[in-house]
Amino acid sequence: TQTQYESLDYDVCENALFQAEQRKRLRDRFSLRIHVIRWIIFILIGIVTALIACTIDIVIEELSELKYKFLKSSVDHNVPVNESTGDLALPFFWWLLFSVVPVAIGAGMVTYIEPITAGSGIPQVKSYLNGVKVPRIVRIKTLAVKAVGVITSVVGGLAGGKEGPMIHAGAVVAAGISQGKSTTFVKDFRIFKAFRDDHEKRDFVLGGAAAGVSAAFGAPIGGMLFSLEEAASFWNQNLIWRTLIASIISSFTLNIVLSAYHGLHDFTFTGLFNLGKFDQPLTFEYFELPLFMLLGVTGGLLGAAWNSLNTLINKFRKRYVPWKVGKVCEAVLVAIMGVTLACTMIYFIDDCRPLGNDPTIHPVQLFCEDNEYNAVAALWFQTPEATVRALFHDPPGSHKILTLAVFTLVYYFLSCATFGLNVSLGVFIPTALVGAAWGRLVAMLIFYLFPNALFLHPGKYALIGAAANLGGVLRMTISLSVILMETTGIETSFFFPLIIALITAKWVGDYFNDGIYDTVIEVNNVPMLSWEPLPQYKGLTAKEILSKPVVSIKLVDSAHYIYEVLQKCNHNGFPVVDDVVGDRRSEGRVCGIILRSQLIVILLKSLYVENKRFWIPETSIQTFRDVYPRYPSISSVRPLDRKINYTVDLSMFMNPSPVRVNTHDSVPKIFNIFRALGLRHMLVINNENRIAGIITRRDFIYK
Amino acid sequence: TQTQYESLDYDVCENALFQAEQRKRLRDRFSLRIHVIRWIIFILIGIVTALIACTIDIVIEELSELKYKFLKSSVDHNVPVNESTGDLALPFFWWLLFSVVPVAIGAGMVTYIEPITAGSGIPQVKSYLNGVKVPRIVRIKTLAVKAVGVITSVVGGLAGGKEGPMIHAGAVVAAGISQGKSTTFVKDFRIFKAFRDDHEKRDFVLGGAAAGVSAAFGAPIGGMLFSLEEAASFWNQNLIWRTLIASIISSFTLNIVLSAYHGLHDFTFTGLFNLGKFDQPLTFEYFELPLFMLLGVTGGLLGAAWNSLNTLINKFRKRYVPWKVGKVCEAVLVAIMGVTLACTMIYFIDDCRPLGNDPTIHPVQLFCEDNEYNAVAALWFQTPEATVRALFHDPPGSHKILTLAVFTLVYYFLSCATFGLNVSLGVFIPTALVGAAWGRLVAMLIFYLFPNALFLHPGKYALIGAAANLGGVLRMTISLSVILMETTGIETSFFFPLIIALITAKWVGDYFNDGIYDTVIEVNNVPMLSWEPLPQYKGLTAKEILSKPVVSIKLVDSAHYIYEVLQKCNHNGFPVVDDVVGDRRSEGRVCGIILRSQLIVILLKSLYVENKRFWIPETSIQTFRDVYPRYPSISSVRPLDRKINYTVDLSMFMNPSPVRVNTHDSVPKIFNIFRALGLRHMLVINNENRIAGIITRRDFIYK
Ligand SMILES: Nc1ncnc2c1ncn2[C@@H]1O[C@H](COP(=O)(O)OP(=O)(O)OP(=O)(O)O)[C@@H](O)[C@H]1O
Ligand SMILES: Nc1ncnc2c1ncn2[C@@H]1O[C@H](COP(=O)(O)OP(=O)(O)OP(=O)(O)O)[C@@H](O)[C@H]1O
Ligand SMILES: [Mg+2]
Ligand SMILES: [Mg+2]
Repeated sequence: TQTQYESLDYDVCENALFQAEQRKRLRDRFSLRIHVIRWIIFILIGIVTALIACTIDIVIEELSELKYKFLKSSVDHNVPVNESTGDLALPFFWWLLFSVVPVAIGAGMVTYIEPITAGSGIPQVKSYLNGVKVPRIVRIKTLAVKAVGVITSVVGGLAGGKEGPMIHAGAVVAAGISQGKSTTFVKDFRIFKAFRDDHEKRDFVLGGAAAGVSAAFGAPIGGMLFSLEEAASFWNQNLIWRTLIASIISSFTLNIVLSAYHGLHDFTFTGLFNLGKFDQPLTFEYFELPLFMLLGVTGGLLGAAWNSLNTLINKFRKRYVPWKVGKVCEAVLVAIMGVTLACTMIYFIDDCRPLGNDPTIHPVQLFCEDNEYNAVAALWFQTPEATVRALFHDPPGSHKILTLAVFTLVYYFLSCATFGLNVSLGVFIPTALVGAAWGRLVAMLIFYLFPNALFLHPGKYALIGAAANLGGVLRMTISLSVILMETTGIETSFFFPLIIALITAKWVGDYFNDGIYDTVIEVNNVPMLSWEPLPQYKGLTAKEILSKPVVSIKLVDSAHYIYEVLQKCNHNGFPVVDDVVGDRRSEGRVCGIILRSQLIVILLKSLYVENKRFWIPETSIQTFRDVYPRYPSISSVRPLDRKINYTVDLSMFMNPSPVRVNTHDSVPKIFNIFRALGLRHMLVINNENRIAGIITRRDFIYK
Repeated sequence: TQTQYESLDYDVCENALFQAEQRKRLRDRFSLRIHVIRWIIFILIGIVTALIACTIDIVIEELSELKYKFLKSSVDHNVPVNESTGDLALPFFWWLLFSVVPVAIGAGMVTYIEPITAGSGIPQVKSYLNGVKVPRIVRIKTLAVKAVGVITSVVGGLAGGKEGPMIHAGAVVAAGISQGKSTTFVKDFRIFKAFRDDHEKRDFVLGGAAAGVSAAFGAPIGGMLFSLEEAASFWNQNLIWRTLIASIISSFTLNIVLSAYHGLHDFTFTGLFNLGKFDQPLTFEYFELPLFMLLGVTGGLLGAAWNSLNTLINKFRKRYVPWKVGKVCEAVLVAIMGVTLACTMIYFIDDCRPLGNDPTIHPVQLFCEDNEYNAVAALWFQTPEATVRALFHDPPGSHKILTLAVFTLVYYFLSCATFGLNVSLGVFIPTALVGAAWGRLVAMLIFYLFPNALFLHPGKYALIGAAANLGGVLRMTISLSVILMETTGIETSFFFPLIIALITAKWVGDYFNDGIYDTVIEVNNVPMLSWEPLPQYKGLTAKEILSKPVVSIKLVDSAHYIYEVLQKCNHNGFPVVDDVVGDRRSEGRVCGIILRSQLIVILLKSLYVENKRFWIPETSIQTFRDVYPRYPSISSVRPLDRKINYTVDLSMFMNPSPVRVNTHDSVPKIFNIFRALGLRHMLVINNENRIAGIITRRDFIYK
């Protein structure tokens, strides 16, 4: 079952109307104004994205604080000192309650209001930037549900992070601001009208995604690189430049707001280092490099296994839990499971540490001595992000080997069960957490064997472990390494070990399967274009992948025929041909290409040759932009009746310069052209310039 | 006078021979091997570039150390304590000697051995990456002259830096290693034969340039971004990824070698922060932002003025100093001027500071008290790079306002006179130095007015000043900001002020003229493609810029005709046509395109239809690669004589899928295609697929 995803039109349709507008703009120095407006929008995107990210951040922090404070005091009051007093079942039930309720709310909202908000959002944004129109992902409603969804889920204590949703939020903000109208609220502010086409919108979304990453991790350069790695096919300096500015503005705004919130007066709020800054520069020895590589291999293996397991679970889920209620229940179940496992661990593992060594916010005493706290509870009584921070920065000796081993195991499977639930949650933080846990574990084990090895800074190994695990699960190496660098403030000299671990993990993982985002995309049958043409296409020529006969339209064709074509087939692009012998349009000579949406507008507005004098004065390219992005369907066009014999002259509406290739051009070559130019349709012509076939995104993927 | 630069063939010629090789590769899993080799080459590029950079670095450091130590002791011995003793003329003459001799050697080498090594090298690398074949820039001889040239000039004390030449060195290393043969040494190692075409070579040079930046500044991410900003048109993830690895390997190697050289045992040699690491995170206040913006404006103005002045000086130079000896003398003259100005400043400005406050290596006492040193001499008695470092990190109160003001003035004009001399020197460091000087000056002035303003960290203002001045002169904003960040180890939170200054400077500067690199490129008439089509091209169509009639060749044409064509015109690409009426080849139907170099090989090797059975078995794509990159000229082909009636069948040699556009396609659109795909020739066809014209790089620039 091929889900019907459509593509974005990144190729600008330079028809006569567009040319007219261009000429007008040249005259009234419009281009400078539009330039300035574009910059302003990018800056706005940075600010608004950061504000939303801040809000999510602060709400999660405050609510979690309340929750865990309450739980801690509940535990303190109910620890059984002698046989009669205290009952630990009580805090357990409180904990259950505080998990189940938010998770149920979150899952309910996602399931019943906007199912597209499930998961991290990065695969969707990635698809969008690749040129696939994923329905409803850049709506304001989506943003609202996503924001509340991620807050409830993280506060509920599910094994997920807020980073993915924040990036998605950035994309929505960008789309919303740049269009100056909202389909959710049916409101059109009528500003920024000039930016209403897929090309402009995609550029803004690129900036929004970058701003999102920047806000989520405090990593402006990482944000820019993320956008590039995921999206840009044609490197356009001005675009990159604007993207970087959006990122920087975003991280700056975040900085101001969070500084103010934390009552600081200078702008070096280190909370921007989301995963905590390493105080001293990390150093390493030559002989540690192979060790890091080994960690990379481990990360690759664990990551690949995680991906496979997760895919299996999700297949199972799709098959056996199709009902909406079931999906909510499932989320609740996983929440309950998490709490139960955590409680069991805390109850049975006896790991007490002296107070004051480790800056735990809610030191639970439980069965420990008076000046000690329970190190297992410390791992669980906070958000996953805080736990990553703890694993990176806790002084050596903060955990028992058994604790970490069990924790790693539990979290590995818990996060695997969580990703794919109908809740808005990202996969970055849990992956980093699992990696940090086993990384630290490795350091502790080696230290246990060789107590004199001074190089075994456990935080360092936690970091490398996190990098390796992230590399193994996500496989986004370039931006990931920069993000990790920026978000922990490590120095350039430690870049090398980090990248060694990441690249090894990626290569090992790639041997087995795809990264988790790509898997999600594949499972959803999104027609993503990869970086290189698929290997099975090597050696083929255009002839072998094109579709024919091509449904074409004559340069001057009857309204009736167009109406019929639109009703009969649902292609989105039709070659415009002339020199047609009889009715054999599919062998005509190519003049241009016209989009379905344009044809519908033509029919709706009755732009016929016969009534030309009525519409010519008031028709411009803006007529077509106004209905963007929700083009009406052909069913909204009334039957032609009286106008059945009218004709349409496409010469002023069609795109007169579609990209054309020859039947014997090689597929790798035309793939590069298709990708570099961000095309939607590519016409294949023969030596006489007659139409021989058409190639779309789908033809590069499924044939 | 249009200098004849030719273009690179970034478009892969997928002819029948190429296809045959592809098929063979598919069979014997060659593609994996070639993949691995490519990675190895990139790693090698990183290592070798770093080693060369290290060598340059260390030699400069050692020689400068010797020079300034000697001068210091000479000054110490010759200070007149009473009327009879001491004569400061002596150290002055020593200084002159130590400047004039190295500068003369450097300038002599550049002038007489390899004039292309003059200047920074970045404009040349930039042109190359843009697709222009600048003769001799990637030869080993060039590298050798450049390395010795930069060492002598920096040691000689000219106002220039080693960064540009290091980047150029990276490019040469990349070209050299990847080709596995040297035209300078007439040696062919016959490895890496598969990489002998412009496409592959340009990709490697991209990595080399990145490795060079990385080694010069210790900025791996900056290196990658530099390459992207200057070069990449089509964003190819794998390429970027390899480029990043080359950068990281390069900075890692540098780290190891420099750590070893400085006798350190861990890998955090802070020398990698070339401009010195700021110990404490830099902070700033809201109200400083407008101030930073003002600094940006100043930087833009000063930078634009510098560029104009420099261009003027260079025009003058070109006109009045055409002789080789004159050029060497000129360099010597500037060196003498520099020393004289420095001595005058040191002699007349009385700026004594207590010892121990500022970590000056060669504290010259001169007329100061016993526990003091001369702060003016401290500025001059070291390499410019060390002076930048000093201005960034010296504690407040290390300089007098007068000293810095005069120093800024002197250095501004000195550096302006230096850039354009026939010596190998970059412009980065002197520009940063001037900026740092006036930045620090501003802080001191404000502090003088408001002695209570505590935010006035002079190092911070020096940094912002340097950024502003660099932005004003170079205008490479994205990579520059990242490089500055990495090379001074500042944190993300200070990224915002830095970019504010940079962007303001760039915008202000752009109002007046181009960046210095672009100016150099323009002065040399290099046909660079800009990012956007030139404004005067908006609204034009292909018809209006194409060249016609097109010199074309028939699919099966006579050897004689081809020979004639090659002798008569020096185009590099010829459309291959069939369906020709009579002799009207320039109206034929397009089948493909053939390059001049291919035609020459065909004639040289006598690949005629008539003697097909002799050459068919042993001819492959490698036959054409073997003569790369020095294709023989047509004059090396003996007259055809006996073979005058032979024919050539181009169907197996020509590129059957050249990019074709239509006569009425808009110029901005075809420009984007041309740039995104890195084309050299673009065929314009009419509606019947007959050749209507040809467009090359030149047509986008000069028409
Ligand atoms: N006008 C056409 N005539 C014949 N076949 C077509 C035409 N347009 C597309 N196709 C083919 O139909 C298949 C489905 O394409 P589809 O109709 O979804 O394209 P589209 O909707 O125009 O573009 P996209 O789905 O990428 O937005 C593809 O194999 C494509 O080559
Ligand atoms: N085969 C040809 N027939 C006619 N005009 C041509 C042909 N090739 C190029 N031109 C035109 O001649 C002018 C000079 O181009 P030139 O001959 O230098 O191109 P080239 O050497 O093939 O490419 P490049 O110089 O970019 O490497 C340009 O305006 C170009 O359009
Ligand atoms: Mg479709
Ligand atoms: Mg030429």
